[in-house]
Amino acid sequence: MPAYSEVTPEIIRQLEEIVGEGGCLSGDAIGEDYSHDEMPIYGTRMPATLVFPETTEQVAAVMRLCSAENVPVTVRGAGTGLVGGCVPLEGGVVLCTMNMDKIIAYDKDNLTVRVQPGVRLCDLIEDVAAHGLFYPPDPGEKTGSIGGNVVTNAGGMRAVKYGTTRDYVLAATVVLPSGEVLELGRAVTKSSSGYSLLHLVIGSEGTLAIVTEITLKLVPAPEASTSFILPFSDIDAAIASVPGIKLAGLDPQSIEFMERDIVVDTEAHTGNQVFPAEVEEQQAGAYILITLDGNDEDEIFQRAEKLAEIADEAGAFDVLVVDQPSEKKAVWEVRDALLTVIEHDAELLDEMDVVVPVDRIAGFLGFVYGVGAEHGIRIRSFGHAGDGNLHIYCAGNGVDEAEFKQKAADIMARAYEKCAELGGQVSGEHGIGHAKKGYLRESVGETAYDLMTGIKQVFDPQGILNPGKVCG
Amino acid sequence: MPAYSEVTPEIIRQLEEIVGEGGCLSGDAIGEDYSHDEMPIYGTRMPATLVFPETTEQVAAVMRLCSAENVPVTVRGAGTGLVGGCVPLEGGVVLCTMNMDKIIAYDKDNLTVRVQPGVRLCDLIEDVAAHGLFYPPDPGEKTGSIGGNVVTNAGGMRAVKYGTTRDYVLAATVVLPSGEVLELGRAVTKSSSGYSLLHLVIGSEGTLAIVTEITLKLVPAPEASTSFILPFSDIDAAIASVPGIKLAGLDPQSIEFMERDIVVDTEAHTGNQVFPAEVEEQQAGAYILITLDGNDEDEIFQRAEKLAEIADEAGAFDVLVVDQPSEKKAVWEVRDALLTVIEHDAELLDEMDVVVPVDRIAGFLGFVYGVGAEHGIRIRSFGHAGDGNLHIYCAGNGVDEAEFKQKAADIMARAYEKCAELGGQVSGEHGIGHAKKGYLRESVGETAYDLMTGIKQVFDPQGILNPGKVCG
Repeated sequence: MPAYSEVTPEIIRQLEEIVGEGGCLSGDAIGEDYSHDEMPIYGTRMPATLVFPETTEQVAAVMRLCSAENVPVTVRGAGTGLVGGCVPLEGGVVLCTMNMDKIIAYDKDNLTVRVQPGVRLCDLIEDVAAHGLFYPPDPGEKTGSIGGNVVTNAGGMRAVKYGTTRDYVLAATVVLPSGEVLELGRAVTKSSSGYSLLHLVIGSEGTLAIVTEITLKLVPAPEASTSFILPFSDIDAAIASVPGIKLAGLDPQSIEFMERDIVVDTEAHTGNQVFPAEVEEQQAGAYILITLDGNDEDEIFQRAEKLAEIADEAGAFDVLVVDQPSEKKAVWEVRDALLTVIEHDAELLDEMDVVVPVDRIAGFLGFVYGVGAEHGIRIRSFGHAGDGNLHIYCAGNGVDEAEFKQKAADIMARAYEKCAELGGQVSGEHGIGHAKKGYLRESVGETAYDLMTGIKQVFDPQGILNPGKVCG
Repeated sequence: MPAYSEVTPEIIRQLEEIVGEGGCLSGDAIGEDYSHDEMPIYGTRMPATLVFPETTEQVAAVMRLCSAENVPVTVRGAGTGLVGGCVPLEGGVVLCTMNMDKIIAYDKDNLTVRVQPGVRLCDLIEDVAAHGLFYPPDPGEKTGSIGGNVVTNAGGMRAVKYGTTRDYVLAATVVLPSGEVLELGRAVTKSSSGYSLLHLVIGSEGTLAIVTEITLKLVPAPEASTSFILPFSDIDAAIASVPGIKLAGLDPQSIEFMERDIVVDTEAHTGNQVFPAEVEEQQAGAYILITLDGNDEDEIFQRAEKLAEIADEAGAFDVLVVDQPSEKKAVWEVRDALLTVIEHDAELLDEMDVVVPVDRIAGFLGFVYGVGAEHGIRIRSFGHAGDGNLHIYCAGNGVDEAEFKQKAADIMARAYEKCAELGGQVSGEHGIGHAKKGYLRESVGETAYDLMTGIKQVFDPQGILNPGKVCG
C-alpha cells in the first residue's frame, strides 16, 4: 500500500479555495453517514475532509491538488451502494458528487440527455418522462445517483429488454487521478475508434477516473405498458416458467421473481395488498411479475394472450392483469421496497448479487437455501428472473455479530463457488467495492486480476483514487 | 519499435508441430492475398509464415512459442477489413482464424450460441435462422468473420434498433500474447464484476488478445419485417427526414441512405432494378431505405402509416412498400453491393467511416463533397443514416497514384477535423488498423492515446501482437 499524506490545514485551505467554504467540511463537522454505504457491516471509516464540488473544473482542481500532495480521494454519490465502494478505507478526502445535480441539456433530435453525476435516478426518470422520452434502466434503488449507476453498470428490472446502464452511456467527461480532463465516447451509436476507455470506466467503481458529466441515450417512451402477476405454488415452479417466457418472443420489459414471505412483509410495510395469497384455494408460494410494453394496447393484449397460455402450461395459478395506474404503482412500490424491508427486518445482513444463467436460477437458489439451513441462518431472496441476477441475503436477528459474520462468510464462499461452477459472475449490478474483492479474484483468476491491477496502474500510478477497491 | 526475431526453420518446425504441416505455410507458398486486406493502398507486406490453427489450445501454443522467441504475430480473419488491420507490418507470423469455423453449440434456454471466430457472418446468420433465432448485427460485408466483427465492434444496418456487435458479445475465450488463456465475461446479461476486460478486447483489433471462442446473445426472430423505399429530390432532403423518423417511436430496424448515382451503378451490377428513377415526373436524387420489424404484420402496417405521414411531410415523393421476399432480396442485394461497386468502379480508393450525430449528417456530407470538388476528386458515399455512420470514398480513375494519395490525404485530414468539430468519431465500425492511427491520435488527444498505449503494454509487454496497429 503506498504511503499517503495526511490532509493538512494548508490542503484544507486550498480545497476551500476550490469548492468554496460551504463545500468543504473537515473533522467533526462531517456526518457519520459519510463513513459508509448501506452495508456498514463491511467496515466504516471517516474521511479527514469531505468536499462537494459543483463542476468538472472543481473536480479537476481537487485532483490536481490531491495528486500533488499524495492524498487519497474516494468518490461518493448517494451512498446507496451495497459493497462498501464509497468507504474511504485510507481516510483522506471524500469527494461527494451530490451537488453536481444538474440536468444540463436535452438533444431531442439525437435522443440524448447530458447530465451531471449527482442527479438522482428518480429525478432523471421523471424529467426524461416530462420530455416525452424514456430512460430504460430501472434499478430498484431510485434514490441512487446516475453517476453511481454508471460506475457500477447498474442493471435493474428492465435489463431483460433494454440492457443495463452500460448500453445507455454514449459519452462521459471524466477527470483522471492526475486532474486531467478527458472526453470519452461521443453522442453517437457506433464506435470502433481505439480501445473503449469509456467502457472501461463504466463499472470501474470510481477507481480509474471520476465521471463528471454523462451523455445518456434515451428512447421514445413506449405508449403503453401492462404488468402481470403470475402466482405459483413455489419458487421452483415460478423460476421454471422463465425460459419458456423468454423464448416466446413476447419481448418482456422485465421478469421479476419474489417469494411469498417477503411480499407479505413488504405489503405490510407499504400498505398495499396486491399480490394474491391464494388462488382458488391454492396457496401462492412465489410470484413472477412481468411487464410488457409497446406502442399499442391491442398488440400488448395479443402478447398477453400468448403469455397466459405459457403461464398455464407452466403451472401458474392465474395471470392477473395490472393495468390501472394505481394498481401498477402499488405493485411496483412493493417490488421497489423489497430490499428496504429486508434491511428493516434484520439486525445483521450480508448480501450477494450474483448472476447465473437463467435456467440455473432454481438450482442455485436451492443450493444457497440449503447451505443457509445447515448454518441456521435465514436466507431471503428476490431478483431479476429474466436475466439471472439474484439478490440473496443472509439475515440475522438476536445473534452474536462475530458468529453471524463467520457463518455468513462461509455461506457466501460456498455460494460464490457454486455460482462460478454454474457459469455465473460475482456481481450483476452492485459491484465489487472492497467487500467482494476476494471473491472477484477467485472468480476471474490471477491472470485477469493482474490485468485489472495493471490497468489501474496505467490510470492511477499513485494509487490515490478510491484505494483498496475492486483490485490491486 | 522492439527488435523482433526472424522466423527460423526451427520455429517453423515447431509451428508445424502445433498446427500440423498442412496448417503452416512459409515463404513462396503463401498467397499474395495474405499481405493485405481490401485496401492495399494503405501498404502491403508478406508474412514469413502463415498458420491456420483450429483450436484455442493451438493458438495458445503458437503464442507461447512466439512470445518465447519474440516473433510478431498478426491475426487475420477473412481479410475483408478496410484499414490495413491484418497487414503484418513487421513480418513474422500471420495467424489466420478461418479454419476455426465451428458453430460449437446453441443454448436455446438462455438464447446464446458459442462459436469459433472463423465462422463467416453469412453462415452464422443462416444457421441461427435455421434454429428459429436471430443474430441482429448486420454489417454490409457478410463474408467477414465473426471474430473480425467482434474485434472491430462491427455495426452495420440494424444498429439503429439493435445496437452493434458489442451488445451481443456475452463472453469470449481469449489467448493473451503470452499464450495464457482467459475466459472473459459469462453467458449472462448483467455484470458488474471488475473492469470489463471483455469490452476492452471488443474493438481492440487483435492487438490485446486473440479471440478464440465467442458466446453471442441471440434474440427471438421477429415474425415479420417490411422495408420501405423513400425517394427524395436530393441527399439533403433525404437526410433531413431522419430525426423525425427516429423520434416518431416507429422503432425502425434500419435507416439507410444512398444517392441515386451509386444506386444506378449498383443496379447495373446486380441486375436488380428496384429503386425508382422518378416518381410522378420528379427525378429521385437520393433514397432512404427503412426496415420495420415486429411480431405482427398489422402492427407493422400501423407504424408504416405513421411513417408515410412523416415521409410526406418531409418531402418524400412516395413510400414504396417492399414486402415480397423476392423484392426484399433484390433491394438488399443492391444495398449490400454498394461498396463492391464503388471498389469495382475505381482504380484508386481511399475511405473514411466516420460517425457524426444524426442531425449533422447533411452538413458533414456537404462539407466533404465541397472539399472533394476543390481537389477535383470524386466523392462517393452511402451509409447508415439512422446512426450517423457514413462511408465516404475518394475514388480515382486515370490519375497519378502519388497525386491521388496526396489529394485524398488532404481531403481526409480536413474531413476528420470537421468530424471532430461536429462531435463525431474517427470510425463507426471499420476500426483504426494502421491507416487511421494518426487520425485517432488527433481525435482522442495525447492523454487518451497514452492511456491506450499503457493498456497495450499491460496486455502485451513485448509488443508482439499485431504490432503497429491502433496505438503505441
